[in-house]
Order: sequence, then C-alpha cells, then structure tokens
Amino acid sequence: MGMIVEVENIDEDDDVLIPPPNFSMVEDCIYRSSLPKPSSFPFLQTLNLRSIIYLCPEPYPEENLDFLKEQNIRLFQFGIEGKTEVSLPALRDSIMEALKVLVDVRNHPILVHCKQGKHRTGCLVGCFRKLQNWCLSSAFEEYQRFAGVKSRAADLTFIERFDLVSLRQCLYSIIYQYQGASKKRRLMYQDENIQKPRLTSF
Amino acid sequence: MGMIVEVENIDEDDDVLIPPPNFSMVEDCIYRSSLPKPSSFPFLQTLNLRSIIYLCPEPYPEENLDFLKEQNIRLFQFGIEGKTEVSLPALRDSIMEALKVLVDVRNHPILVHCKQGKHRTGCLVGCFRKLQNWCLSSAFEEYQRFAGVKSRAADLTFIERFDLVSLRQCLYSIIYQYQGASKKRRLMYQDENIQKPRLTSF
Repeated sequence: MGMIVEVENIDEDDDVLIPPPNFSMVEDCIYRSSLPKPSSFPFLQTLNLRSIIYLCPEPYPEENLDFLKEQNIRLFQFGIEGKTEVSLPALRDSIMEALKVLVDVRNHPILVHCKQGKHRTGCLVGCFRKLQNWCLSSAFEEYQRFAGVKSRAADLTFIERFDLVSLRQCLYSIIYQYQGASKKRRLMYQDENIQKPRLTSF
Repeated sequence: MGMIVEVENIDEDDDVLIPPPNFSMVEDCIYRSSLPKPSSFPFLQTLNLRSIIYLCPEPYPEENLDFLKEQNIRLFQFGIEGKTEVSLPALRDSIMEALKVLVDVRNHPILVHCKQGKHRTGCLVGCFRKLQNWCLSSAFEEYQRFAGVKSRAADLTFIERFDLVSLRQCLYSIIYQYQGASKKRRLMYQDENIQKPRLTSF
C-alpha cells in the first residue's frame, strides 16, 4: 500500500529520544525544560539550538558545558535563587534581562531552563506571555501546568505585577514587530547596541 | 534609550488574547488545546490555522463552524467517545487516521482538540511522540501534565500498546523524512492518494 518516495532513517526507530522532564515548546524556536541530563543530549541535538538561558546561580554542570561547546551553543546565565526568599528587585532585573535574550531571534532556537523547569522558568515564560498579550489567567494556567502541586503564589503574584512599564522599556530597546493581526505573530528586533550601518544589511 | 526602527501595534497591548485552556504547541505548526470558546477566536486567528482535528463525536458547535468558515480552516472530525468504555480497535483506528492528518504538512498549521484537551488529545499526542521516537516515560509525563489529576491508566496503556507495526503502516503510506540527525527533525510526506503528476510539482 502507498507510494514511498523517500524515507530516511526508517531503521532508527530504536534510537529512543529522551526529552528532559518538563520539556515543551513555548513558541517557534523557543523551548523550556528542566536541567538537561546527558541522557537528553541526543534529543537536544534535534532542536539545533543556538542558545540556552540558564536561570540558576549554580555553575553549569561540566558535562553540559562540554555539550554546549561541542554543539556551539551559547550559554546565557542569570543566577536567580531557587528559594522563595529571593529579592524582588533582583528577580525583576534578572527576568527582564533574560526576556531580552529570549525574544532576540538571533539567539534562536533557544532553550530556557532552571533546575526543575517549574518556578524560575515558569516566571520567565509567564512574563513572556504577558509580552505576547496573553490574558493573565491563561499565563497562570500554563505556569501551573508545569509547576503542578509545587505551584507558588509568590510566582503568580510576580508575573501579575511584572509591569507593562518595564515591559515597554524592554520593547522600546528592541524592535518588536507584528506581521499584522491575521498573521501568526513573530518576534523581530535588533537591540540598541547595533550600529546603524548593520541595520540596513538585514 | 535604544533605537526604534519599527514598532507596530504598540498600542494594542490592551487587546488581551485568550488561548483556550490546555493550549500548547506540540511541534512546529502543531498545536493542542481544549474545545475553543468564541472568546479564544482572536487568539486562534494569530496561529493562522489551516486545519483543526476534532476528536469528539458531538457535532462541532455552530459558532465554531462559523469561525472556521470565515477563516477558511478545514475541519477533520474523528468521533471518539469521551468515556473510558470506548472500544479499543475503534480508538486505534481513529487515532491512526487522525495521526495521518496530523503529520501531513499540507494541513499545517493544525490544532488538535477534544473537549478538555486531556484524554483524547493526550492519546493522539502521545502516539505522535512515539512516532517522533520519544521515550515512553517522556510521552507519559507530557500526557500527565495536561491530564493532571484526571490522568487515566487506560490512556497510558493505549499509548504504550499503540504498536510500531501500525505506526510503520502509517509511515509507509506517507513520506516521512528527517533532515538528518543533527538537524531539527521535520515532517514531510505525501499520502498515497496523490496522483503521480502532482508529486513533481512540489
């Protein structure tokens, strides 16, 4: 039955891929997960990542660093404490800086992760959803889907309070362009450090 | 601060978008959710959908049909009963047919949904993950993230037992091509009903 024109890797069905726990796509070329173990490296390779955002203060594991070097993946680290007694202004600054990296298409495809892929990653993705104009309850529902019983009221409050002024500062330091209401929205921007001559080359 | 080259729709931040509950990206141009209410139609418009897979036997709601007609979105309906007493062979057949539609890039961007986006959608996505060579525990983890406390052992068993022979029948009736191990995997295929002359036009 059927007409096969080309089938590659048909015998590789036994090479099972192991995504990290709490792995998911967030948007085109934006992914989230928990801290990947070496068993997930073959899966990560299929994503063809250009960058990783790591939201913990702990040094990146040696074997993960080796993987990144080998795959030519750039690491952006923002050291956010994992516990709830984190200082709010520091958290706000870190999330803002991480957001700027996250929406920069020059860093895509990009993976954001912390340790469990629940709280810190959930806060960043929640703020990103606000940037995308998602209603708060939808952003919360997504946060809770990943945090499960570990959901933290403080994180939800953080996402809710992450203000549009800060978001606009972020927006105004980049180019954020929609392709129009009926089209799929795409992020495009160049940051403030780019020289004028380079702008014309895009 | 910063240099703004182009910022569109900057004043539309108040047009809040409401994704349907349990909305998520599954893969490039593949989405999942619960049954969308009209309040989510503006959000769905941003996805630029070409097709929807609906996994319930109930007639598609009138207002949703109107939205699809207006947006020129094609509906594929596979009537799977929502309760657990569904016949296994019938379920297997429906999921197989839905899978063929799901992986067909000509139907992308595509949204798959049932009522809650938990069980029927979870089964389809779980089988799709097997097709992508995800290990079973990762497919289960994803199923459970959406099903939450409503997780059903019978669904997990269904996903586990959904056999590679059936999957290969599906594969062999289409073209399923990986772009190589180190690249992001993409689905490309044409089904058995396509006339030979049309193959050359792609």
